[in-house]
Amino acid sequence: MAAQVKFLDTTLRDGEQSAGIGMTVDEKLQIARQLSRLKVDIIEAGFAASSPGDFQAVQRIAEEVHGPIICSLSRAVAGDVDAAWGAIKNAEKPRIHVFLSSSEIHQMHQLRKDREDVMTMAVEMVSRAKGHCDDVEFSPDGRHPHQPRLPTMLRDIQQNVRGIENVTLSVHCHNDLGLAVSNSLAAIEVGARQVEGCINGIGERAGNASLEEIIMALDTRKDLFGVELNVDTTQIYASSRLVSRITGMNVQANKAIVGENAFRHASGIHQDGVLKNRSTYEVMQPERVGLPPDVQLVLGKLSGRAGLQARLDALGYSLDREEVTSVYQRFVELADKKNEVTDRDLEILMDEENRTASEPVTYALETVHFTGGDKDIPTATVRLIGPDGNAKTDASTGNGPVDAVCRAIDRVIGCTSRLADFQVQAVSEGLDSVGSVTMRIENSGRMFSGRSANTDIIVASAQAYLSAVNRMLASDEEMSLPEVGTTPD
Amino acid sequence: MAAQVKFLDTTLRDGEQSAGIGMTVDEKLQIARQLSRLKVDIIEAGFAASSPGDFQAVQRIAEEVHGPIICSLSRAVAGDVDAAWGAIKNAEKPRIHVFLSSSEIHQMHQLRKDREDVMTMAVEMVSRAKGHCDDVEFSPDGRHPHQPRLPTMLRDIQQNVRGIENVTLSVHCHNDLGLAVSNSLAAIEVGARQVEGCINGIGERAGNASLEEIIMALDTRKDLFGVELNVDTTQIYASSRLVSRITGMNVQANKAIVGENAFRHASGIHQDGVLKNRSTYEVMQPERVGLPPDVQLVLGKLSGRAGLQARLDALGYSLDREEVTSVYQRFVELADKKNEVTDRDLEILMDEENRTASEPVTYALETVHFTGGDKDIPTATVRLIGPDGNAKTDASTGNGPVDAVCRAIDRVIGCTSRLADFQVQAVSEGLDSVGSVTMRIENSGRMFSGRSANTDIIVASAQAYLSAVNRMLASDEEMSLPEVGTTPD
Repeated sequence: MAAQVKFLDTTLRDGEQSAGIGMTVDEKLQIARQLSRLKVDIIEAGFAASSPGDFQAVQRIAEEVHGPIICSLSRAVAGDVDAAWGAIKNAEKPRIHVFLSSSEIHQMHQLRKDREDVMTMAVEMVSRAKGHCDDVEFSPDGRHPHQPRLPTMLRDIQQNVRGIENVTLSVHCHNDLGLAVSNSLAAIEVGARQVEGCINGIGERAGNASLEEIIMALDTRKDLFGVELNVDTTQIYASSRLVSRITGMNVQANKAIVGENAFRHASGIHQDGVLKNRSTYEVMQPERVGLPPDVQLVLGKLSGRAGLQARLDALGYSLDREEVTSVYQRFVELADKKNEVTDRDLEILMDEENRTASEPVTYALETVHFTGGDKDIPTATVRLIGPDGNAKTDASTGNGPVDAVCRAIDRVIGCTSRLADFQVQAVSEGLDSVGSVTMRIENSGRMFSGRSANTDIIVASAQAYLSAVNRMLASDEEMSLPEVGTTPD
Repeated sequence: MAAQVKFLDTTLRDGEQSAGIGMTVDEKLQIARQLSRLKVDIIEAGFAASSPGDFQAVQRIAEEVHGPIICSLSRAVAGDVDAAWGAIKNAEKPRIHVFLSSSEIHQMHQLRKDREDVMTMAVEMVSRAKGHCDDVEFSPDGRHPHQPRLPTMLRDIQQNVRGIENVTLSVHCHNDLGLAVSNSLAAIEVGARQVEGCINGIGERAGNASLEEIIMALDTRKDLFGVELNVDTTQIYASSRLVSRITGMNVQANKAIVGENAFRHASGIHQDGVLKNRSTYEVMQPERVGLPPDVQLVLGKLSGRAGLQARLDALGYSLDREEVTSVYQRFVELADKKNEVTDRDLEILMDEENRTASEPVTYALETVHFTGGDKDIPTATVRLIGPDGNAKTDASTGNGPVDAVCRAIDRVIGCTSRLADFQVQAVSEGLDSVGSVTMRIENSGRMFSGRSANTDIIVASAQAYLSAVNRMLASDEEMSLPEVGTTPD
């Protein structure tokens, strides 16, 4: 039997470190469930000791998500290792992942310890983790780019480390030079049997290795790599869309495998080639990564509950009667404003359904009204229902309707936030399309994001802004929970 | 002296083939001038025989852009080769690039010719091109992914083709499996001395090799590759921003080298490392790719003309007195609405200045007014000045203010278009930020894009939509020019 390569998905841990991404526990659970459908081998669910929120997310994923190994990251300090175990101990298959900045440059500049101390820390903390849990991963963090190439380094380890045959070698590549995927593949060729990465290649700076690219390279070139995977490639597209929607990190149209254009042919010559024989220009078939078939059933006002349910089934959502009733209401509202409701509209509808069900709501939006133009002073009025159940109304001008709406909300709540990012995208084609709005706000150095979708992008902006503000208010409460684990030196 | 690797930038040819990108001749010139500042060795300016617009773009770039070799693509047919020469003959350094779908699968399925015929076509058309021009590139298009690896293939060519030592081997990689950059680098290691790609890795499907990633890999790992480049790496960031703004193809935040987060550190541990020693986590310095320094001089209402000009100089724009006067007017209008005018705002201001100077204007927007809300019927009023100089006013409802504004414009002009894409991004941070709007519309199978920026995103949407419509109207006129070259079999 061919050797197997295992995938450790760290979207929820290293991916979350992307500037400006902050997910709620419920959102993390939603992604973890999708990763289990994708059949990744290991989910790195978080870094339990880093915050009470992270601890809780790892714990709930360990308890509620089945299939993959559930892993928590841990620095090589006792408090971290114990917190990691505390969070994952109820998982079907728990793992503790101890890491250490061990390259010389890190030792000298960061840990300010010498080589001997570092070795002792590593051995002691891996033993401590082993005391809790059979499955322990140890990561010496930080190969310097001017060291020998990764395959050379791995061969050196294979040839010189005693007992290495009992160890699964894993690589964790970052994409600063755009080479994370090819370095991961090169490592597999010399015997690495686990690779780490994130869906859509998200992560700090230029991100982590893009898991879907590694998967599809191995899948498409089975002849070359000769390794087996557990992954269900047809879940790639759904995983990519979910991560993009939840994190607000948009995927570039020309991103390999999951970009909007990845399977789209524009030039006449190529279209001609594809029509004559699909294999001419397509190295893989769109169905293989789970792209929905081209022929889409478009729903409208008269489609009815059964039509909606059938289409949601086909898109992979399984809902009970009560859930369908709730979604159907939203569907009718949308079909009233928009002639054709596409699969993408339905995805957003389901997303909104999941989001609003799980979101903290301190203030609810009752009404928003705005007016503006190039010769007007943009003005907005909002009415919110506060935590005490009372409605409060206020108005504000702004330099545009989004600004006016957000300032009016600030006035009602009595807070101000800095807008760090604002994006609107059309969900489907056509002038009457739904607009999906992502807002990230900053308050006292922390980032909060809100999303919403509506045919009216100013209404969606008000909803997204309020959603971010509600998260900020909820997190102020969460901050008063007891601290878990230790903090860095 | 170390061997030199040359860069062929095909942003204007293969990049333009990305679904939904259509650039005007002036926009192509603007990009070509930036590519000359970046010091790429060859600019593939277009595919002269493919359309009168492409012919004109290649011709103007050949005449007006100095420094790089200017090249036109050409199929291996006489009409194409002659049209290519017609377009580039006035360049300082002209090149004809003849391509042929020569892999067996393409021969059988696409050209429907046998191997002998194909060889004859290639030899005849390269000779014909040589008759016009000393510098000829020949590309046998379409290595099948299941053939041997690229380096193996190149070594085979080096060992078996007579006279190969007089030929520069070039590679042109696409990114369907996310491996375009690493394949290009592998080719350089076995002796390829030209690589082809696009800024930001744009291009059909998953795009072409990302030129800036190849450049920075070679630059950062000089020790490993040991080759020299002509490129001025400090022009990378400006090139990336310009291509992104003109094509409307946004760069993903975690894209290597040029993504918004590429040099941004989020996690506490990494920030700590960077503060202690920059080389800990940074494989290259942001200044090396031309990222503007962190300390930005922020302008405001009282900055005055001299302050504006000084800052524009620092950002690399050199303007004469008259141009400064025009930009200053826009600057004062913006500073009136926004307390702090950042470098990014200035970039957009300059962009708007260049765009409006070069854009076809059949209809001009005089006034736009809108009103909406979650319990209102969104309504817009517009007044446009038509080609006859007369103002026409109309109003429309819509399912949101953008829809209402565009439908009102449609009513005045008497046309309808399908919205293919709509995106809004905040240009800088803060609630009072400028929003940059990109719209792509489709009409009779052709795509047109419009962009605009304003603190009011509904006003910007109206401007962007009208700009796309004006392009559509202008192109209806352009279509009546005589056809150049031949059309595909």
